[in-house]
Amino acid sequence: MPDITATLAATARLVDEELSRLLTMPATPESQVFDAMRYASLSGGKRIRPFVVMQSAGLFSVSEKSALRAACAVEMVHCYSLVHDDLPAMDDDDVRRGRPSVHRQFDEATAILAGDGLLTLAFEVLAHRDTHANPAVRTSLIGALAKAAGGHGMVGGQMMDLLADPDTISMPEVTRLQQMKTGALFAFACEAGPVLGNAPDAAFEAMRGYAHDLGLAFQITDDLLDAEGNQAEVGKQVGKDAAKRKATFVHLMGVERATAQAKLLAEQSVEHLAIFDEKADLLRQIARFSVERRR
Amino acid sequence: MPDITATLAATARLVDEELSRLLTMPATPESQVFDAMRYASLSGGKRIRPFVVMQSAGLFSVSEKSALRAACAVEMVHCYSLVHDDLPAMDDDDVRRGRPSVHRQFDEATAILAGDGLLTLAFEVLAHRDTHANPAVRTSLIGALAKAAGGHGMVGGQMMDLLADPDTISMPEVTRLQQMKTGALFAFACEAGPVLGNAPDAAFEAMRGYAHDLGLAFQITDDLLDAEGNQAEVGKQVGKDAAKRKATFVHLMGVERATAQAKLLAEQSVEHLAIFDEKADLLRQIARFSVERRR
Repeated sequence: MPDITATLAATARLVDEELSRLLTMPATPESQVFDAMRYASLSGGKRIRPFVVMQSAGLFSVSEKSALRAACAVEMVHCYSLVHDDLPAMDDDDVRRGRPSVHRQFDEATAILAGDGLLTLAFEVLAHRDTHANPAVRTSLIGALAKAAGGHGMVGGQMMDLLADPDTISMPEVTRLQQMKTGALFAFACEAGPVLGNAPDAAFEAMRGYAHDLGLAFQITDDLLDAEGNQAEVGKQVGKDAAKRKATFVHLMGVERATAQAKLLAEQSVEHLAIFDEKADLLRQIARFSVERRR
Repeated sequence: MPDITATLAATARLVDEELSRLLTMPATPESQVFDAMRYASLSGGKRIRPFVVMQSAGLFSVSEKSALRAACAVEMVHCYSLVHDDLPAMDDDDVRRGRPSVHRQFDEATAILAGDGLLTLAFEVLAHRDTHANPAVRTSLIGALAKAAGGHGMVGGQMMDLLADPDTISMPEVTRLQQMKTGALFAFACEAGPVLGNAPDAAFEAMRGYAHDLGLAFQITDDLLDAEGNQAEVGKQVGKDAAKRKATFVHLMGVERATAQAKLLAEQSVEHLAIFDEKADLLRQIARFSVERRR
């Protein structure tokens, strides 16, 4: 049985190396924006989304190179969203992954541009033939990533988050908000494997079900860590959701029910993987890890 | 001889209709971000980049539908860049196209998200099969647009612009800055036609040469309008480059030399079109229009 912690760390190293390679440029008058893009994306994240891409690709005999490039594209989009969400006009977070957030380390203009640059580079990476020999596969990835990241996905979710009133929002609305804000990119990470591997419909269905439940479990755990974790462990300011009156699952359900719900969703997510053999074991493990993590 | 003003207006109408269609969504809790995306992109711009896409596509028998979708993608990227550049942390512009800029009409968070949404939607539009039946053509467009918009293009150019010291910057540096900041997207607009039409190398060369000279002519004219135009005509605040000590051609060359240079570049751009017949007449006319316009 492969060890989840070791495999996560190994994947993170691979992703860091590839991201660093993709973000290399000679010193120029504008290289500050690349410095900020590197700072934003090479800062020791858990790399759970890239891990899911790599594992889902592994189910369908996708080459490591293809999977790694798709994984980096997902991580770039994730990191861009953190950079923009941390801005003073948005969630106004000064700390991210235990370090000053990008606009604190550089400045706001550089942070806006670094986010824009990462988002754009994600699509450039996917469009390149190194990602997959078949251009139809590349356009599928690009279309799906854009949908997950755009106004009907992450961007719309963040807008909803900024506008939501935690005292009147309903449980279905919070669920929709979180599906858009974080679930959609999670789902893309899970579907990248079957897309790259031209998998049959049943495999897509399975990965979609898995992604749906895992994404929610992951988000509830994030909310719980904000409510209960301490900053040194979590690597970012905690207690901010309550202070900023964010519409979270924890706010609506309370800590106890939210904890139980996350655990249930993680177990449920694994059931969707029943059609896969032991190759899916790490996807099963990451589901449990997602709700047991301390950061 | 087709009339440039009438054709520009007709293209603008087509682009407005298609953009409006692409930006339609039902009322939802997050639809404010779509309202802002519509406000940013349906505000009566000149649509010169879409015009160039449509005309360059017309040289190679590209279907109007394909050309129009590519034109909308370019315009979305252009509009996103205006929204982000206008933010207080960047160029801090309150007026755009004669109306409050997006962050003044909505708020900063919504403006950041609307820009992100437009950028993302541009790639979604290009990735969709409606843009071209051949996915290899779509990945070419996406790769080229991402290069033009990213850290080595528009994003890098804006970074350079924010950091440049107008008293020490050299002419080659200003040229590089403007090539990245506005030239790269202009070049993409000119190359979209040959990409969509699978044109021979000679056509690419011609369009690249044309784009290079036209992009510079256009930018110098923008600088001149900022230095000399009046706000009512130009539709945005003028005199800001000087007030903000921007590194512009006008700052380095003075008004008289810059005017002559723009005119020269516009004439030069047309020479690259010698291999095309009268189908390129409107591209020839837009070059002259670009330097004679009052806004």
